[in-house]
Amino acid sequence: MTRQFLVRPIGRVESVLRSRDEAPRQPDEGAPSAWLVFDESVREGLRDLAAGDEIIVVTWFDRADREVLLVHPRDDHNRPETGVFSTRSPDRPNPLGLHRVTIVATDGPRIQVDRLEALDETPIVDVKPVLGDVTER
Amino acid sequence: MTRQFLVRPIGRVESVLRSRDEAPRQPDEGAPSAWLVFDESVREGLRDLAAGDEIIVVTWFDRADREVLLVHPRDDHNRPETGVFSTRSPDRPNPLGLHRVTIVATDGPRIQVDRLEALDETPIVDVKPVLGDVTER
Repeated sequence: MTRQFLVRPIGRVESVLRSRDEAPRQPDEGAPSAWLVFDESVREGLRDLAAGDEIIVVTWFDRADREVLLVHPRDDHNRPETGVFSTRSPDRPNPLGLHRVTIVATDGPRIQVDRLEALDETPIVDVKPVLGDVTER
Repeated sequence: MTRQFLVRPIGRVESVLRSRDEAPRQPDEGAPSAWLVFDESVREGLRDLAAGDEIIVVTWFDRADREVLLVHPRDDHNRPETGVFSTRSPDRPNPLGLHRVTIVATDGPRIQVDRLEALDETPIVDVKPVLGDVTER
């Protein structure tokens, strides 16, 4: 039997986006700036993050459908379905979101980022630096 | 109280890397090719992945220390510690690994990738396409 693991959120998103209908389909459609609000318990781990840093925020889409393996095009039902692992759909077996953003400001355990396509109250599970092409791989 | 979430692995890594001592510190030090072996239950979600595709494999470092918030330089103890969220250390509160790789071959539920710095038997929790700069964000 496969072992399972417990994800413990380290913070949450504070955003004007309140529902999936409001969320942009793609980030270039204008995702808004947002705040990342971290738990005091992980604050020490944030101490080297600063304005200007490019980071990858990993979220858990807590309102996702985890049973989805095939994604239906939203606009055109004549187009074929796509295997979920070839898409960025939030509906997937482990609904992790990867968001590459730039830090705009920091204020203790609160970090403002330039744009984020995640709903208000979305749990944050990790933050990683963007390290350039080589170490990104 | 913060809600927690259950990650259910969708497969595992098959690699010649058996221990963290053998693993390269950085991918350009020569991470080996590896196989991603997926559970039959998610096979339908893989159907549009093909050789040549660039993907991000998300793993769960099941041998990580989840209590780490400050990372000590491995080689030079005079250098200062770094907040874990400014590093790619596998030791972190939610030990997720992001691996940007290229698919070399597919064989049913098995997918070979060009190089992967993850140990043999590491659980795989998600796969996403690399979509270019705009949609990466």
